[in-house]
Amino acid sequence: MPEVVFPLDSTRSFTDQSLVGHNRWHPDIPAQVHVRPGDSFRVHAREWFDGAIRNDDSADDIRDAPLNSVHVLSGPIAVEGARPGDLLIVDILDVGPIPQEDSGPLAGQGWGYTGIFATQNGGGFLTEQFPDAYKVVWDFSGQVATSRHVPHVSFPGLVHPGLMGTAPSADLLSRWNAREGALIATDPDRVPPLALPPQPDSAILGTLSGSEFDRVAAEAARTAPPRENGGNQDIKNLSKGTRVFYPVFVDGANLSLGDLHFSQGDGEITFCGAIEMGGFIDLHVDLIRGGMDTYGVAENAIFMPGTTDPRFEQWLAFSGTSVTLDGEQRYLDSHLSYQRACLHAIDYLTTFGWTPEQAYMILGAAPIEGRLSGVVDIPNSCATVYLPTSIFDVDIRPSAAGPVRIDPGQGVPRSSF
Amino acid sequence: MPEVVFPLDSTRSFTDQSLVGHNRWHPDIPAQVHVRPGDSFRVHAREWFDGAIRNDDSADDIRDAPLNSVHVLSGPIAVEGARPGDLLIVDILDVGPIPQEDSGPLAGQGWGYTGIFATQNGGGFLTEQFPDAYKVVWDFSGQVATSRHVPHVSFPGLVHPGLMGTAPSADLLSRWNAREGALIATDPDRVPPLALPPQPDSAILGTLSGSEFDRVAAEAARTAPPRENGGNQDIKNLSKGTRVFYPVFVDGANLSLGDLHFSQGDGEITFCGAIEMGGFIDLHVDLIRGGMDTYGVAENAIFMPGTTDPRFEQWLAFSGTSVTLDGEQRYLDSHLSYQRACLHAIDYLTTFGWTPEQAYMILGAAPIEGRLSGVVDIPNSCATVYLPTSIFDVDIRPSAAGPVRIDPGQGVPRSSF
Amino acid sequence: MPEVVFPLDSTRSFTDQSLVGHNRWHPDIPAQVHVRPGDSFRVHAREWFDGAIRNDDSADDIRDAPLNSVHVLSGPIAVEGARPGDLLIVDILDVGPIPQEDSGPLAGQGWGYTGIFATQNGGGFLTEQFPDAYKVVWDFSGQVATSRHVPHVSFPGLVHPGLMGTAPSADLLSRWNAREGALIATDPDRVPPLALPPQPDSAILGTLSGSEFDRVAAEAARTAPPRENGGNQDIKNLSKGTRVFYPVFVDGANLSLGDLHFSQGDGEITFCGAIEMGGFIDLHVDLIRGGMDTYGVAENAIFMPGTTDPRFEQWLAFSGTSVTLDGEQRYLDSHLSYQRACLHAIDYLTTFGWTPEQAYMILGAAPIEGRLSGVVDIPNSCATVYLPTSIFDVDIRPSAAGPVRIDPGQGVPRSSF
Amino acid sequence: MPEVVFPLDSTRSFTDQSLVGHNRWHPDIPAQVHVRPGDSFRVHAREWFDGAIRNDDSADDIRDAPLNSVHVLSGPIAVEGARPGDLLIVDILDVGPIPQEDSGPLAGQGWGYTGIFATQNGGGFLTEQFPDAYKVVWDFSGQVATSRHVPHVSFPGLVHPGLMGTAPSADLLSRWNAREGALIATDPDRVPPLALPPQPDSAILGTLSGSEFDRVAAEAARTAPPRENGGNQDIKNLSKGTRVFYPVFVDGANLSLGDLHFSQGDGEITFCGAIEMGGFIDLHVDLIRGGMDTYGVAENAIFMPGTTDPRFEQWLAFSGTSVTLDGEQRYLDSHLSYQRACLHAIDYLTTFGWTPEQAYMILGAAPIEGRLSGVVDIPNSCATVYLPTSIFDVDIRPSAAGPVRIDPGQGVPRSSF
Repeated sequence: MPEVVFPLDSTRSFTDQSLVGHNRWHPDIPAQVHVRPGDSFRVHAREWFDGAIRNDDSADDIRDAPLNSVHVLSGPIAVEGARPGDLLIVDILDVGPIPQEDSGPLAGQGWGYTGIFATQNGGGFLTEQFPDAYKVVWDFSGQVATSRHVPHVSFPGLVHPGLMGTAPSADLLSRWNAREGALIATDPDRVPPLALPPQPDSAILGTLSGSEFDRVAAEAARTAPPRENGGNQDIKNLSKGTRVFYPVFVDGANLSLGDLHFSQGDGEITFCGAIEMGGFIDLHVDLIRGGMDTYGVAENAIFMPGTTDPRFEQWLAFSGTSVTLDGEQRYLDSHLSYQRACLHAIDYLTTFGWTPEQAYMILGAAPIEGRLSGVVDIPNSCATVYLPTSIFDVDIRPSAAGPVRIDPGQGVPRSSF
Repeated sequence: MPEVVFPLDSTRSFTDQSLVGHNRWHPDIPAQVHVRPGDSFRVHAREWFDGAIRNDDSADDIRDAPLNSVHVLSGPIAVEGARPGDLLIVDILDVGPIPQEDSGPLAGQGWGYTGIFATQNGGGFLTEQFPDAYKVVWDFSGQVATSRHVPHVSFPGLVHPGLMGTAPSADLLSRWNAREGALIATDPDRVPPLALPPQPDSAILGTLSGSEFDRVAAEAARTAPPRENGGNQDIKNLSKGTRVFYPVFVDGANLSLGDLHFSQGDGEITFCGAIEMGGFIDLHVDLIRGGMDTYGVAENAIFMPGTTDPRFEQWLAFSGTSVTLDGEQRYLDSHLSYQRACLHAIDYLTTFGWTPEQAYMILGAAPIEGRLSGVVDIPNSCATVYLPTSIFDVDIRPSAAGPVRIDPGQGVPRSSF
Repeated sequence: MPEVVFPLDSTRSFTDQSLVGHNRWHPDIPAQVHVRPGDSFRVHAREWFDGAIRNDDSADDIRDAPLNSVHVLSGPIAVEGARPGDLLIVDILDVGPIPQEDSGPLAGQGWGYTGIFATQNGGGFLTEQFPDAYKVVWDFSGQVATSRHVPHVSFPGLVHPGLMGTAPSADLLSRWNAREGALIATDPDRVPPLALPPQPDSAILGTLSGSEFDRVAAEAARTAPPRENGGNQDIKNLSKGTRVFYPVFVDGANLSLGDLHFSQGDGEITFCGAIEMGGFIDLHVDLIRGGMDTYGVAENAIFMPGTTDPRFEQWLAFSGTSVTLDGEQRYLDSHLSYQRACLHAIDYLTTFGWTPEQAYMILGAAPIEGRLSGVVDIPNSCATVYLPTSIFDVDIRPSAAGPVRIDPGQGVPRSSF
Repeated sequence: MPEVVFPLDSTRSFTDQSLVGHNRWHPDIPAQVHVRPGDSFRVHAREWFDGAIRNDDSADDIRDAPLNSVHVLSGPIAVEGARPGDLLIVDILDVGPIPQEDSGPLAGQGWGYTGIFATQNGGGFLTEQFPDAYKVVWDFSGQVATSRHVPHVSFPGLVHPGLMGTAPSADLLSRWNAREGALIATDPDRVPPLALPPQPDSAILGTLSGSEFDRVAAEAARTAPPRENGGNQDIKNLSKGTRVFYPVFVDGANLSLGDLHFSQGDGEITFCGAIEMGGFIDLHVDLIRGGMDTYGVAENAIFMPGTTDPRFEQWLAFSGTSVTLDGEQRYLDSHLSYQRACLHAIDYLTTFGWTPEQAYMILGAAPIEGRLSGVVDIPNSCATVYLPTSIFDVDIRPSAAGPVRIDPGQGVPRSSF
């Protein structure tokens, strides 16, 4: 086990630690940790809501989730000698739940959760069909997750960090704020919002304080979206063994990370999606000097996924096209196509007895794959979603015998405003 | 080898055969072939332009491609006893290029092609960056494709039908025409168009003739898009061993198919994409009576992919978000995100010496994977594209040594208006 | 499809063809076909008994199988410029059953067979437990095999040539005869025999005739065993996409091949094992000059398996050690360990209702894997056999509920002396 | 993390712990731990020589390895209610090196070793070719192992317990002693020995003491071989996610385990093979009442391997047959065939510059596969060994260009008597 350079004590809140991380992006948040190219080290990470979500059977905590406070990130970690224009090589040596702690009140202590936000507090991919708040708690047994809220399903986790990235330069940050502000301005009162502006409320900025804190808090970008620096990409394939190449925008690169997931389906469609948890991640870092120019990587991470992901033999796949549920034809809208494919999968699973909410949660948390299958066949794009059949303990393949019926049990906790 | 129920003679045009297929969707195109549940049979399929594209080093044929004439489809094949509401089970037992013919003027005779349409004649996924017509010819050697136009690349094909589907009902067809017409009406002069209306010119309608031909030709839907009946889904994973379940909308189901691909990347991003060819497909059919209702499959095919697809160990992946090249922020636009991811991959490959056109062609034809990685992190969706590293005969992984340089050779034939 | 350089007409016997192959190894059997490095070509291959085994429900033909006549081989194929000391590169571009023929009396015409020889006529791996002759007929549907004699089982074939090799030099041949003769001399009357000496009876030697035929027939080696030249290796992984490197012992290399298998388990434990058939194989050849010395390959083929073999997710594995059924301890006898592992698998499957013969046939024909797991832990070696669970249509995993019971149907035809 | 029921303190010797395990098999070694069906728990395991092998560049410790003292095992663990005739289900939830300790003098603290025993002290699979003692130290970085003694090689570990099994009954134990004694009696002075008789010297027997210790020590079986109870099977595929079914021979089953491996090739051919280490293993246990009879499992474990093992795309394989290096023909000797295949692989790798000892170590420690490819083709069996090409950082595939040459560096420490 490499040395822990960013420790977290599970009994204390994120801001009451020996090193305090951050929950906004800004070049002026000082590095908390310094490493060198070639170093291996361990970083602890707190679940993204810092413990606000509980292991119980109520979705009230999801309904009332404090969105201004996310994502609590570990870092920044400065890499000695990194300069703008370099590529930062990050090898994910290992990643998992909180080590040596298998019970407790904090997600990552042997359990994790998946939530669906209410439309009025964040929404989600299928918020029109699922307007309320829902929560599912998953238990970890070795590599496998199961849930009392979603019976007849178990699967090996593809543990990964949902969020990892380098600090933006001042210029890059100002571009983010400009373009996202412009988008928000097109419909400022939308629920859920089109984007999230800088928000001083609940900002955590590491060691900053006083007027410098205030200045940065007013400018710093929110962590919700992925951007040029990587960020909240929620790519389920960043599992152990993965090598990621991040563009460097500031001296030292200033890498930060968080939002660990025990597992996730492509798209993280439930938003408070994946199986959220805290835990650890072991990294090895190196640099390619001037690599951004050399390899034409001006922005966004490139990566080589690990080679020890779960292997599945058989998948059941659903397709969707860019026609709305109301029958309106959209032009090559792959986002809509994927929504339709996912809704088809949900409709299908309900014929076996799972509730629509359970089916939605399965798609969000299990290692399903979402593909852009056809993107040119005007006017319909075609997206597909693949479910590994072995995650179900009943046979979900279509047959002349019809679906077996499962008992959905207590179902998914729900909470509305 | 099962019995050939729909033969094609490679020396004759598609309309000069013992059985003549069709290139439009309409419930009143009579079935040409009758099979029973439980039957296995072979169907020949012509490449989608019926031989208009040649094995040469000019892209003029792609520039002038007769879009009104596509896709030439084999069928309809009536399945005895199939009724609306059933699910038609189609097992793809085998699929490949034209059997026992490894040279000749017809794509599928040992070779195939990938094209990029000019913006003025169809366009494509990246038509703003690639406004002209381009063509690449691929040679088949066993399971492997190589091209004189794209050196240093070879890959095993994931042979599949780009297009397969059941006939629409009259009601479904009228809905298609209404919704697509409404979309076209929003910008009727757009180049390329938003959608393609019924087009009697170049219609092929099997055995229909006279006034019935004229009536159907005026109403029949174009084959370009995927729709509720399956259709031109261009799902690269419909390879041999796959079982597909199609909704049945008319008595007999009236299955048709065509547009075989030797290989394709997710999205078929070059439009005249994939490696286009003619060939054969062996099918086994069966029925699930009333399966649409039983399994909640109101529309769109569901399927279980085959289990003998090429296995790849290592992938190099690129990500993109929903920000335009001009820096405009779009809201969760996965289509744009995938464009940006693909453009990143193209930029990257050009640092090794491939031309942008060659890189684009690789993404269109090779078994790359395109994923909807994040679809909820407002305002940016995140899409990713994965390239198997072993399809290149040089090491394309980023390293401190920088990219090796390949000789792009003669490059990709190009033709403009 | 590459040019057919060694054709076979399915309506005629192996010796009544335009080119006549051979069924013995000898350097003086003249090449029938000449190719050049870089060439691709197709070779037809007859099933190893030249049609003596029928698609029926009797095992009499297996009981009386003419062992002196095997294996009928296509070739020799001379590669221009090949010299002793070179490595011959053979790419298996494609391989399959007899093309375009899916019914008929010849194995490979849509069907194949697996046999177990009687102890008095060849025997097999488990001949003490299975002393009689047995036969199973398999039907091909696309990539999949099923059998009326073994219900509840189906699997994708891993088609491969059981036998391929280069001609021995005169010196190598004389070493074979000397060492195998010495072994036979230790127990010349053993049933089954320890090895097979040269046997002029039923010898087929291509174009040889007269006294030259007689001389060569008296010296030529039998084709049963694998040897330095490759030969009857029965390696199930030589599937399409595989590249093999054979040592070259004579000018021209003189490659020959036959004994195609639709599928086989590791070990080909039933002897007349695998799913035997005739068919075609497409090869590409090339040379590494002096490669035997350069790469230290003095003997035996080396190879790189193809990458499109069936993928299985879940296996049920059985282990065995080198203790006989009578409880005698043997010293690190991996052959015995594998027998014990296979017997354990057979015992297990019979608790589900399959007969022991059916279970044995499954192990011989399905893509099971046999591993040398431990070879040093004195006195017991440990061998393991892995069965893919998805080839069974019932759940064969152990559980508290106990095995489901299948109906074994008509069972396996049996014939005794 | 489940509760630790068998803890080990890395700073103390195996016999100086709160719970003391054992290094012999005997029904009367009392259970140290009691669990119930359905329980999950963690067990620590010491490396098999209890720290006698050091992280240095001398092989003296391997030469002088105290073979009488192995294997130090954690247990016995009694499962409440288990009775003879049951099957004990053991799920390997997780397994890895010593947690939270990445440096120190004990194998498992961030490093492990592979040894080759001298012929005079144990020998090994290829002891005739490698008669001395050799040692290689491997460093762990996340999932990956590398060694200063074997450059240009790295691979992901397939961590597994080399040894796990249930206690024998008195009757079974007496059969072991009888049959192994009979084997030893055939050549009692052989070096290395044919088998190892009971050996009171260095026996560790848990809580036993006094005359009971003496009695049991005189009868107890050595742990080297795998037997009916599982034991030292050294099956590399018992990785995390695996479910094993062990026969139960005594009340409580009395499960014990040890000999953890970070990685191993099929066969563990170097004997002190694999990458030896201490660490932890998380297990879940359950029972199938009467399962031995129900499923016909009279002896030897059956198992279902995990589904998250490293995935490899390309392998280079070597074959061998049952002819000795001196040219003597043996009858279907798969053990010899595998030796010859391994020697071929070693010869091959030395043409690249690795020393024979380095090549041998690679085969012992890396996740190579060893297959029983042909076991019936008299007189030659055919065994094959598969090397994943991606574990080398140079291209090891044969080509006309010949092998690249690597610098073998300091090589493998060696020590002779």
